[in-house]
Amino acid sequence: MGIILGPNQYGKAENRLVVVSRDGSVHTVKDLTVSTSLRGDLADTHHTGDNSKVLATDTQKNTVYAFAKQAPVGEIEDFALRLGRHFVSSQEAITGARVLVDEHGWNRIDANDHSFVQGGNEKRTTAVTVHGDDAWVVSGVRDLVVLKSTGSEFHGFPKDPYTTLKETDDRILATSVTARWRYLGTDVDWAKAYPEIRGLLLEAFATKHSLSLQQTLYTMGESVLLARPDVAEVRLSMPNKHHFLVNLSPFGLENDNEVFYAADRPYGLIEGTVLRDDAQDAGHAWDTLPTF
Amino acid sequence: MGIILGPNQYGKAENRLVVVSRDGSVHTVKDLTVSTSLRGDLADTHHTGDNSKVLATDTQKNTVYAFAKQAPVGEIEDFALRLGRHFVSSQEAITGARVLVDEHGWNRIDANDHSFVQGGNEKRTTAVTVHGDDAWVVSGVRDLVVLKSTGSEFHGFPKDPYTTLKETDDRILATSVTARWRYLGTDVDWAKAYPEIRGLLLEAFATKHSLSLQQTLYTMGESVLLARPDVAEVRLSMPNKHHFLVNLSPFGLENDNEVFYAADRPYGLIEGTVLRDDAQDAGHAWDTLPTF
Amino acid sequence: MGIILGPNQYGKAENRLVVVSRDGSVHTVKDLTVSTSLRGDLADTHHTGDNSKVLATDTQKNTVYAFAKQAPVGEIEDFALRLGRHFVSSQEAITGARVLVDEHGWNRIDANDHSFVQGGNEKRTTAVTVHGDDAWVVSGVRDLVVLKSTGSEFHGFPKDPYTTLKETDDRILATSVTARWRYLGTDVDWAKAYPEIRGLLLEAFATKHSLSLQQTLYTMGESVLLARPDVAEVRLSMPNKHHFLVNLSPFGLENDNEVFYAADRPYGLIEGTVLRDDAQDAGHAWDTLPTF
Amino acid sequence: MGIILGPNQYGKAENRLVVVSRDGSVHTVKDLTVSTSLRGDLADTHHTGDNSKVLATDTQKNTVYAFAKQAPVGEIEDFALRLGRHFVSSQEAITGARVLVDEHGWNRIDANDHSFVQGGNEKRTTAVTVHGDDAWVVSGVRDLVVLKSTGSEFHGFPKDPYTTLKETDDRILATSVTARWRYLGTDVDWAKAYPEIRGLLLEAFATKHSLSLQQTLYTMGESVLLARPDVAEVRLSMPNKHHFLVNLSPFGLENDNEVFYAADRPYGLIEGTVLRDDAQDAGHAWDTLPTF
Repeated sequence: MGIILGPNQYGKAENRLVVVSRDGSVHTVKDLTVSTSLRGDLADTHHTGDNSKVLATDTQKNTVYAFAKQAPVGEIEDFALRLGRHFVSSQEAITGARVLVDEHGWNRIDANDHSFVQGGNEKRTTAVTVHGDDAWVVSGVRDLVVLKSTGSEFHGFPKDPYTTLKETDDRILATSVTARWRYLGTDVDWAKAYPEIRGLLLEAFATKHSLSLQQTLYTMGESVLLARPDVAEVRLSMPNKHHFLVNLSPFGLENDNEVFYAADRPYGLIEGTVLRDDAQDAGHAWDTLPTF
Repeated sequence: MGIILGPNQYGKAENRLVVVSRDGSVHTVKDLTVSTSLRGDLADTHHTGDNSKVLATDTQKNTVYAFAKQAPVGEIEDFALRLGRHFVSSQEAITGARVLVDEHGWNRIDANDHSFVQGGNEKRTTAVTVHGDDAWVVSGVRDLVVLKSTGSEFHGFPKDPYTTLKETDDRILATSVTARWRYLGTDVDWAKAYPEIRGLLLEAFATKHSLSLQQTLYTMGESVLLARPDVAEVRLSMPNKHHFLVNLSPFGLENDNEVFYAADRPYGLIEGTVLRDDAQDAGHAWDTLPTF
Repeated sequence: MGIILGPNQYGKAENRLVVVSRDGSVHTVKDLTVSTSLRGDLADTHHTGDNSKVLATDTQKNTVYAFAKQAPVGEIEDFALRLGRHFVSSQEAITGARVLVDEHGWNRIDANDHSFVQGGNEKRTTAVTVHGDDAWVVSGVRDLVVLKSTGSEFHGFPKDPYTTLKETDDRILATSVTARWRYLGTDVDWAKAYPEIRGLLLEAFATKHSLSLQQTLYTMGESVLLARPDVAEVRLSMPNKHHFLVNLSPFGLENDNEVFYAADRPYGLIEGTVLRDDAQDAGHAWDTLPTF
Repeated sequence: MGIILGPNQYGKAENRLVVVSRDGSVHTVKDLTVSTSLRGDLADTHHTGDNSKVLATDTQKNTVYAFAKQAPVGEIEDFALRLGRHFVSSQEAITGARVLVDEHGWNRIDANDHSFVQGGNEKRTTAVTVHGDDAWVVSGVRDLVVLKSTGSEFHGFPKDPYTTLKETDDRILATSVTARWRYLGTDVDWAKAYPEIRGLLLEAFATKHSLSLQQTLYTMGESVLLARPDVAEVRLSMPNKHHFLVNLSPFGLENDNEVFYAADRPYGLIEGTVLRDDAQDAGHAWDTLPTF
C-alpha cells in the first residue's frame, strides 16, 4: 500500500479585468473575471516543495493582463483559447489548462459615447479546456433569472406518507438559469452564437407550457440543439425559486394567483443534460465543471 | 441617576412580496421587498415584557400581504404611505411608522405576455415615515452601477508625508450609486418622477467632466433639484470603485488607459447632501436612514 | 432660493490590515478592517473640483498602513483615536474624522506559536469620532449570533383583523446581536472592557427569562450600564431570527418543541437604546452611525 | 441523429433544520442544512411532463423534517444515510439518492444549559450517495480559515517573460480549507472521526514547513490517510488568500514581515487529491461533487 497524488490543478482565480477600447471617441468596455488553472507534471511541488515546474499563479495573472493588451480581447471564447494554448505551450511540464471567463454586461448611457450603466447580474460564461493540442469550449450563461406568471402546472406526482403538497394547474414558475453548452469545435462565430442561444433558452422557457420544471429544462436544451448543429450537449441547473400563494382567507380575501411570498430557502433544484446521441466524446471538456 | 429607554422601534424586515396583475392575457409583475417598523409607547414591553401595545411583527407581515390584495399596489410610495398610515391609525400606542420598499425590476420576454427576465441588480427604493398625521417620502435608487471610461481627472490634492498617489488627468470613474431624495409633499406623480430622476442622475454622471467624485456627486444632486421643484434634498453615497491601470512595462507593453484591474477593497467612499437652502425642515423624514 | 451643499464626508473604506508581532518565537496576529472618513471645509471640491483641501483617500489608506508600523497597533480604540487625531491635525481644512475598525478574531492552533484558525464571524468593533479637540468612542460587537432553546415566551399582544399568530409560552429565541456602546471618556482599559461587556451581553441574553425580544434587549443594555459606569449608552439592533415549529401532524408525529425550520426572511427587527438619564450629551459620537 | 436526455437529478436544496433535544434541563442544539437529490427513471417528466415517478421536492423536504423527529438525528453521516436509503427504497423509479448535510456549530454559553453562541463560519459536511444497495460517505469540512505567520516559503519557480513575482523565504500563508474525505465503508464512529481528522488537518497545516501550498495540501491529505485506515482518499481545495507585504519605504519605514494588506481577489487556488494506490474504486461516491 502506498499513498499517492491524484488529480490536481492550480491557478489564479477571479482576476478582475476591465479593458477599454476606442474607436475614435466611441469607447467600448469589456468587463471580465478570468480564472486560470494548470495541470501536468506537478508531483514534485506536492512531494518536496520543488517548484521548478510551477508557473507561479502570479505569472498567470500577469499573463492575463498582458494578453489583454497584446491583441484585442475579442470574444471571451477566443481570449480563453489564446490563454489556454499559451500556458500549455509555455512550459513543458504543463499539459493542460482550464480557463474560465465570466463577462459582465454594460449598457451605454445615451448621453455620450464613454459612459455606461451595468446591465444586471446575468453573466456570459465560457470554460475552455486545452489538453495538449486539443481544445474544448463549453460556453454558457448564469444568473439568468426568469419568471412566468402562468403557463405552469404541477400534478400527477406520487403520494407517499410524507406528501402534503397540493396539485396545481396554475403556478408561478421562477428560476435562475445556469446553462452550459459544449461546442463541437472551436470554429464558431462566438459573437453571434451567444445571443442566439440565450434567446433560444428564453423563448423556450416562455413559450413551453410547463407540466414540470424538468420538462421546461429539457425543452430549453433541446431547442438549442435543434437550432445549433455545432452544439453537442447542454447542461442546465435550474433552482425552482418557490413563490408561495399567500393564504389570505383569514382576512376574508380571496387570492386568485395574485399575491405571492417569494421564499429564499429551501428551493427545488433541477439539473439535467440534453445531448445528441451521436455526439463525439466530450473528452476533457467538462473536467472540473459541475456534473449531475 | 437612572437607566432609561431611549429611541427604539421594531418591525418585520424584508417581506418578499410578488404581485401578479392581469389585464386580459397581459400580466404585470411587481416584485417588492417590504420592511415595516413601528414606534410609540413601547416602554412596557421593554421593562416588563407586557406586550399589550406590541402589534406583532407577524401581524405587520400579514398586513403587507393583505394590503397587496385589498387594492392595487400601485407605485411603491403609495403602497408604503397606505401601510404606514394604517399602522399609525390602527393602534393607539403606535405613533409612528417607517415603511421601506425596494422594487426589483423585471423586463418582459418578447415571446408572450406573461414571461419575464430580471432586470439587473438596481433597485428603486422608498422610505416613508408616518408620524401622527404627518408623512414624509424619501425615494431613491440603489445598486445603480455606472462607469465612465474617460472624462474624469484627479489632481491638485495636498501632498503630506503619506501621499504617494500620482495625479491623473484621465482615469476610469466607476461607482455604485445609492441616492435618496426627499420630496416636499406626498402629492407627486410617483410613476413619472422615478424614471425622470434616475435619468437626471445618469445624465449628470455621464456628461459632467469630473475633477473629483465629489464634484460629480454634487452635480448629480443639483441636477435633480434644478429640474424637480418638489424635491427638497438629495443624499448620495458613492463608493469610488477603483480601476487601477495595470503596469505592463515589465512585459515591454505600453498601457494607454486600456487595461485595468478592478479592485474590490478598499474603496473610496464619497457621501454628501445637496439641498435647497429654503427647504422646510426635514422633520422625521430621515429618521433611522443613513446620515453623513 | 439657492442650492447648497449639506453634510458630507469622504474617505477610504475597508482597508484590510493584518499585523504580525513577535515576542521571540511567539507570534500574535491582529486582523483589522479599517475605514476612515474626513469632514471639514470641503465645499470647493464639490463646487469646482478644486482638490486643494482633499487629502486623497489613497493617502488615508497609506496612513493606516504606516501607523500600523510606527507604533504597536494596540487596542482598536487606541489605534482609531491615533488615526483620527492625526487626520484632524494634519490638514487645516479637516475638522473632523471618523475611524471605524472591525477586529476579526483568530485562535492559536496548539501545534505551535505561529499558526492560527479563524475564530468565527463575530467582530469586535469601534467607531471613533474626532472633532477638533474632542473625541468620542463608541465600541461594539456585531454578528454575535446567539440562541436560547427555551426560556422565551411571546403572548399578550393585541389582536387586530390581520393577526393570526398564536401565543406561545415556549419558543426558540435566536438573534444576531449588533451592539454599540458609547464610552463617557477615552481613558478606558479597552482590552479589559471588551470581553467584560461581551460577557455581560451574553449572560443577560442567556439568563433573562424573556417575554419579548424587546425585554431581552433592554436587559442586555441595562446590564452593561449597571456594571460599567464609564458607559453612557448602549444601542442594540437584534433581528428575530425566526425558528418555526414544523407541523408534523400530517405524518402522525407530535412536535414538542423539537424540530424547527430556521427561516431566512422576513425576520423581526428589534432596535433600541438604553441610556443613563444624566449622561452628558452624545455630541458627535453617533454621527453617521445607524440610529433608531 | 437524435436528441436524448443525459444525466440528471432533482431535489430540494438547503432545508434549514434545527433540532433541540433535552437530557433533563440540559439542551442540545443540532443546526443542519440538508439538501437531497434523487436520480432514476426520470425520462417521462422531462419528455412529457408526466410526473408519476417524481417524488415531489416538497415531499423530500417533509421527509427531512419528519425523519428528524422519528429517531434521534445523531451524526450527520447517519442521518444522511438514513434519508438516502429511505428515498431509494420508497419509489421503484428512484435508483439513487444524494444527501448533502452541513452542520453549523454552536457553543454553550456558561450561564445555563439552554443558551448557545454560534461557533464560527466553519462547517462540518457530509455527502452521502446511495445507489441501489450501495452507499458511499464522503465527509469533510469547509470554510476552515487558517493562517501561518511564518514557516512558509515560495521560490524556485520558473521565470518566463510574464514573471515578476519575487522569491520569498518567509511569507504569510493563509487559506480557507475545503476538505472532503471518502470513507471505505459506512461502519465508522462518525462522532470520533470528525474531530480527529479536523485536528490532523490543522496540525499538518501548522507544523509542516511549507515550500509551496501544494506541499502543505499534500501533507494534510497524507496525514489523514496515515492515521485513518478507513479513509481512502482526501480531496482538498485551498485558495491562497494573499497577504501582501505593504511597501512602507516611501514613509521611511522598514516592513520586516509585519504589516500586510489582505487581498480579496484574485487569489491562488490549489486543488488536489491524495489517495491510497490500492483503494477500491470510488464508485458513485464523488458523483456531482467538485472534481479536479
